[in-house]
Amino acid sequence: MDVDNSGFTLWLTGLSGSGKSTISHLVAERLRCARRRVELLDGDVVRTNLSQGLGFTKEDRDTNVRRIGFVCELLSRNGVIAVVAAISPYRAAREEVKARIGTFIEVYVECPLDVLAERDVKGLYKQAMAGLLPHFTGVSDPYEPPEKPDLWIRSDQESVEHSVERVWTILKDRDLV
Amino acid sequence: MDVDNSGFTLWLTGLSGSGKSTISHLVAERLRCARRRVELLDGDVVRTNLSQGLGFTKEDRDTNVRRIGFVCELLSRNGVIAVVAAISPYRAAREEVKARIGTFIEVYVECPLDVLAERDVKGLYKQAMAGLLPHFTGVSDPYEPPEKPDLWIRSDQESVEHSVERVWTILKDRDLV
Repeated sequence: MDVDNSGFTLWLTGLSGSGKSTISHLVAERLRCARRRVELLDGDVVRTNLSQGLGFTKEDRDTNVRRIGFVCELLSRNGVIAVVAAISPYRAAREEVKARIGTFIEVYVECPLDVLAERDVKGLYKQAMAGLLPHFTGVSDPYEPPEKPDLWIRSDQESVEHSVERVWTILKDRDLV
Repeated sequence: MDVDNSGFTLWLTGLSGSGKSTISHLVAERLRCARRRVELLDGDVVRTNLSQGLGFTKEDRDTNVRRIGFVCELLSRNGVIAVVAAISPYRAAREEVKARIGTFIEVYVECPLDVLAERDVKGLYKQAMAGLLPHFTGVSDPYEPPEKPDLWIRSDQESVEHSVERVWTILKDRDLV
């Protein structure tokens, strides 16, 4: 199999602070070390470059996810690996994107709310729980977890290294690396 | 030179109806025949997938151009050829995108307004000239032509086949095909 030319999309979904970015950065780095073409589409980069002006209503969030999906589609079908770290809270929008992309690996990065609230690196959970952030996913806005993700990570119960290893194993099992 | 892996962006700018789409489709097809990885980003596709909700003010048009540019950047640096057909009326926004992308070939597809108005395939020039379309480029909205395009096509004076040939020659001269 001509592994070097097969693009795909690796999509990490989960709450803010759950560890999506950290894991996706490390996986992307490992893919680059394996001499693969990789683009990392992290939430912030995407908001800056594709989705300025969009807010956090359901409609806007879905538009954001669809737009990331469009870019992933272009990259994947041209042999590039698109690694996405995006809250992407609504199941239907994720499914819609999945259906458009040839090979789509969905990773659910789960972390219980109380752990997130205790870490609270950006101080956002505290604000959200005090009712100051109206559209904060997991607190004041819904999050619909994947029903059958390709991989389910409980980031409060395993090390980042272990999670990265598990992602890698999935990719290996599917002949993607 | 490892031609097969070198991505770049070929950007066609010009008024509506000038022939950008036709030329870009034919060039993209020829690139595919040469077994290159190509994505064609045509105005309509982009409006649907990246820029729903954007209007036709200067700000919105520039945002649209920047967004297309971002996607071109991702594709180009991963060995894919991005072919763009977009009115992209403002010089500064085009220059901004050009500066971000490694290899950027700008093609200006020019056609005089009276010829466009006579062809008027979509009937839009008639409406615009009657004052019914407030933001119609070239009539009720500005178009800033490139000062030094890599190629200048006068689509009313040469055949489509000849234009495609000239684009191809430019790409050949730059060792891009």
